[in-house]
Amino acid sequence: MIERLCIIGVGLIGGSLARALRDAGACREVVGAGRNAGNLQTAVELGVIDRYHKGQLADEVVLTDVGSAKGSVIEAAQRAFGSVPEFFVPGHPIAGTEQSGVEASFPGLYNDRRVILTPLPVTSAAATGRVRDMWEAAGAQVVSMNPVHHDAVLAATSHLPHLLAYSLVDTLARLDDNDEVFEYAAGGFRDFTRIASSDPVMWRDVCLANSDAILLMVDHYIKDLQALREAIRNHDGQQLLDVFSAAKAARDRFIDKSSE
Amino acid sequence: MIERLCIIGVGLIGGSLARALRDAGACREVVGAGRNAGNLQTAVELGVIDRYHKGQLADEVVLTDVGSAKGSVIEAAQRAFGSVPEFFVPGHPIAGTEQSGVEASFPGLYNDRRVILTPLPVTSAAATGRVRDMWEAAGAQVVSMNPVHHDAVLAATSHLPHLLAYSLVDTLARLDDNDEVFEYAAGGFRDFTRIASSDPVMWRDVCLANSDAILLMVDHYIKDLQALREAIRNHDGQQLLDVFSAAKAARDRFIDKSSE
Repeated sequence: MIERLCIIGVGLIGGSLARALRDAGACREVVGAGRNAGNLQTAVELGVIDRYHKGQLADEVVLTDVGSAKGSVIEAAQRAFGSVPEFFVPGHPIAGTEQSGVEASFPGLYNDRRVILTPLPVTSAAATGRVRDMWEAAGAQVVSMNPVHHDAVLAATSHLPHLLAYSLVDTLARLDDNDEVFEYAAGGFRDFTRIASSDPVMWRDVCLANSDAILLMVDHYIKDLQALREAIRNHDGQQLLDVFSAAKAARDRFIDKSSE
Repeated sequence: MIERLCIIGVGLIGGSLARALRDAGACREVVGAGRNAGNLQTAVELGVIDRYHKGQLADEVVLTDVGSAKGSVIEAAQRAFGSVPEFFVPGHPIAGTEQSGVEASFPGLYNDRRVILTPLPVTSAAATGRVRDMWEAAGAQVVSMNPVHHDAVLAATSHLPHLLAYSLVDTLARLDDNDEVFEYAAGGFRDFTRIASSDPVMWRDVCLANSDAILLMVDHYIKDLQALREAIRNHDGQQLLDVFSAAKAARDRFIDKSSE
């Protein structure tokens, strides 16, 4: 049981965690903290938190976070505390929607989702255990990973796709006949670009926080895309078919494992 | 009323049209034609077509197609008939799923979807009218467009996104730790890459059929993506925020108009 859960930043992610732990009866009190008093008041009214407070870390605190890049958070903790505190367990729930804000939070967000923890050698095993228990109470499956590896994997599966989707919608929006272009977009386009409706501020921050890993992946991707471009230019149907078939097979295998 | 509807190629698209027109009571008989007798037999068993036949155009035929590129189809008709016949109405339903085959066909596929017809000056107005009536009976909204313009618009909203999705999944599948990479992909990735589960043969053909328009869009896209890459490298948060915000605004506006 968590005696007091403090959510710093009560939006989609923090709000959904609070709702899930309340539903699971896994915490006695939820206190919110954040920069925007109006938002915290909304969270109280929605029953997501009990009250809010300027906040100050208790002596026996366990601290975790939900950022999509872990290296930069660990650096920030080092700057803030002088060294990375043993009670800090860097974490990242692989869950979200293109919505944001506490109004969009819901208790089922973490059901059967992965949460990656990236504890360091200095991190207390007890703190890691408490954070693991918390996420499991919220319905998630918890795994541990090296922070550098986490940042590389997430650059590939999340940060790069967001960048590509934003870039595509922006490219199309700047075409002369952009209204008409969007008018003839079908369902595939809607799915493909859904992540371009995500919070621009958060994704700017992710791109800056994980820039090295993202740059590696972007360069890799542009190189592969240029090879496809050459295949189209050379009318090399076999090359196109090989790439498209390999991609379909990989995705279908991935879906079999995860179920759509 | 259509006395005899002949569907050449009874898969997702042709099968769904036959089902929709049957449900609407808009045709008396549906005859299938195609290269694969086994598939045609399945279509008979599913009740999608009444019978199938090697096929031969009747004297008073109206001919249309459903290809995602129109310039190449018009060229093919010209080669096959000597000149583009006045009874040929090039068409393209903006509808589909990542599935293919007659088993995946369903009558509601065209409900409230756009169908673009690209008649030429030689095309008979009566033929165009019959094709328009047919698609409207299947639930679609029919618009007309110049074939060159059609191919440019579809390169932007459909062909380029498919290429990007295939390319991304292929890039990730060729990473050393590709199994693990897919394991940590979240819902956003699943939506983003759904179109990479589309039929590779069809998309190879689309890329070859509409190569000029696609190359223009790919080059445009790579240039914009490289600018974003530079913004990340230079830690230019304002540039990232501008692009992401413009993209989100454009997509949200597009969804408002079309409803998700």
